[in-house]
Amino acid sequence: LLGLCGAAGMAIAASSAGTDLVTLQQAAATLKSTRPTAVDLGHAIDRALQLAASVDEHARADALWDLCEAMLREQAESDAALGRHGASLLAGNVLTHCNTGPLATGAGGTALAAIIEAFRSGRLERCFATETRPLLQGARLTTWELQQAGVPVTLLPDTAAASLIRSGEVTAVMTGADRIAANGDTANKIGTSGLAIAAAYAGIPFYIVAPTTTVDLHGPDGAAIPIEFRNAAEVGGFGGLRWSPGGVDAYNPAFDVTPAALIAAIVTERGIARPPYRESLLAFVDGGGS
Amino acid sequence: LLGLCGAAGMAIAASSAGTDLVTLQQAAATLKSTRPTAVDLGHAIDRALQLAASVDEHARADALWDLCEAMLREQAESDAALGRHGASLLAGNVLTHCNTGPLATGAGGTALAAIIEAFRSGRLERCFATETRPLLQGARLTTWELQQAGVPVTLLPDTAAASLIRSGEVTAVMTGADRIAANGDTANKIGTSGLAIAAAYAGIPFYIVAPTTTVDLHGPDGAAIPIEFRNAAEVGGFGGLRWSPGGVDAYNPAFDVTPAALIAAIVTERGIARPPYRESLLAFVDGGGS
Repeated sequence: LLGLCGAAGMAIAASSAGTDLVTLQQAAATLKSTRPTAVDLGHAIDRALQLAASVDEHARADALWDLCEAMLREQAESDAALGRHGASLLAGNVLTHCNTGPLATGAGGTALAAIIEAFRSGRLERCFATETRPLLQGARLTTWELQQAGVPVTLLPDTAAASLIRSGEVTAVMTGADRIAANGDTANKIGTSGLAIAAAYAGIPFYIVAPTTTVDLHGPDGAAIPIEFRNAAEVGGFGGLRWSPGGVDAYNPAFDVTPAALIAAIVTERGIARPPYRESLLAFVDGGGS
Repeated sequence: LLGLCGAAGMAIAASSAGTDLVTLQQAAATLKSTRPTAVDLGHAIDRALQLAASVDEHARADALWDLCEAMLREQAESDAALGRHGASLLAGNVLTHCNTGPLATGAGGTALAAIIEAFRSGRLERCFATETRPLLQGARLTTWELQQAGVPVTLLPDTAAASLIRSGEVTAVMTGADRIAANGDTANKIGTSGLAIAAAYAGIPFYIVAPTTTVDLHGPDGAAIPIEFRNAAEVGGFGGLRWSPGGVDAYNPAFDVTPAALIAAIVTERGIARPPYRESLLAFVDGGGS
């Protein structure tokens, strides 16, 4: 969805601010700076810029709106493939984190597409969804999307994930990704790395489901991934409700990096990458692979 | 504090419901059933029952109130000793979970007593406090108590704990305990085991600070510890605010069990127990040891 929004932002800029390349380059820089961790946003904006530079100035706005529609169709096809590949890894009950459904991608979703497909094909019984503090995407969005899809869902506090994983109730943990480095280190919603560590401790697999556009081969490993830190006000309350005293500092990174060594597989729309990721991801991202 | 409340509950029962032993035994059973995981509650109630049985019926109510005052004095001495022993393990920054301060024990606290003592003695710079969903004791109580004590405090979502631990910003994780089995397996607030697993992964020590009354030598290991499951309504909202859709099931255990193998030390008021805990705890609980 960030990529689609980036492309739409470029089309809006061309329609309202101007179609000269300097204006579009300024719009691109502004749009990119809004979410430094996610790689899909930058990819889509670069694609829009290249398209704009390749057509006459008077045709740029139409071309950028056509690009948005093409990207929506591509997204639907990619998400359906992610769902099919990811579903093949699931059985019994799964735990997921944050929101990775239609509300997150604009089409079928990533990890949630796989979870819904696994339920529909009879492989999966139930999805456990973390609340995902501080913005509660799991409690607000994932529960709702799974209800809409008819998948039995159980909500849990983020604090309960480790004991659930150790209880034997779930056979796998599956999440999306915001950026995957060339070695497989993966940035995703804050809390993901803790789930991966708990899964490794319990001996159950941890899976990433993400399109190849999320893979950043220019980033060698997780240390090179910029992490967005967000407003302290998101911690210590929610919405209009405050539950912590005033004047308290907060540590509020939006993402964390899960080491590749904790990831059993990275599911892409082109197939399932297994360790070592430096080779398996390269094959998919370069257009090779299954 | 649960122990003090249990003793006070017995004194209240004797003052209001009756001082015959059958009435007091019924009160004891009711009070014990309110919190099945915490062992301090049962210890205190058994102590009150034994005292009641050892004095004449007309003297029982006064004796039980005297017991409450004696237990408050004992608590203050015990917490002060916990603070001294626990502080010796800390340096730099520490991460804690839930609330273990004066509001939790009625006197100085357990882990928080150690953290405050370590700050006052110049060993500690800052305490990171988890929000501790679903009841947010860390966000509501621990931040406030540390502010009152003048200790610099940073609040974080539970989801951010694993990345903070891996960042090198904290040198240790220190929490309290609700029940410690004979082998050192420890039940504490939900989320504790996830922190201990993350600390082990990052190679920093995880410490428990709890009085010897928390040790249940009759419980051989964590599998024997009963875990209280709480109302699903606590998940998916807080206070009057709801953020998840209706009709969602919830997984809401109040406690989890941290395996003894993940615990670097168990700090008691009688000294610091190190693995193997079956021997080291026995020495302290039987009244031996330093």
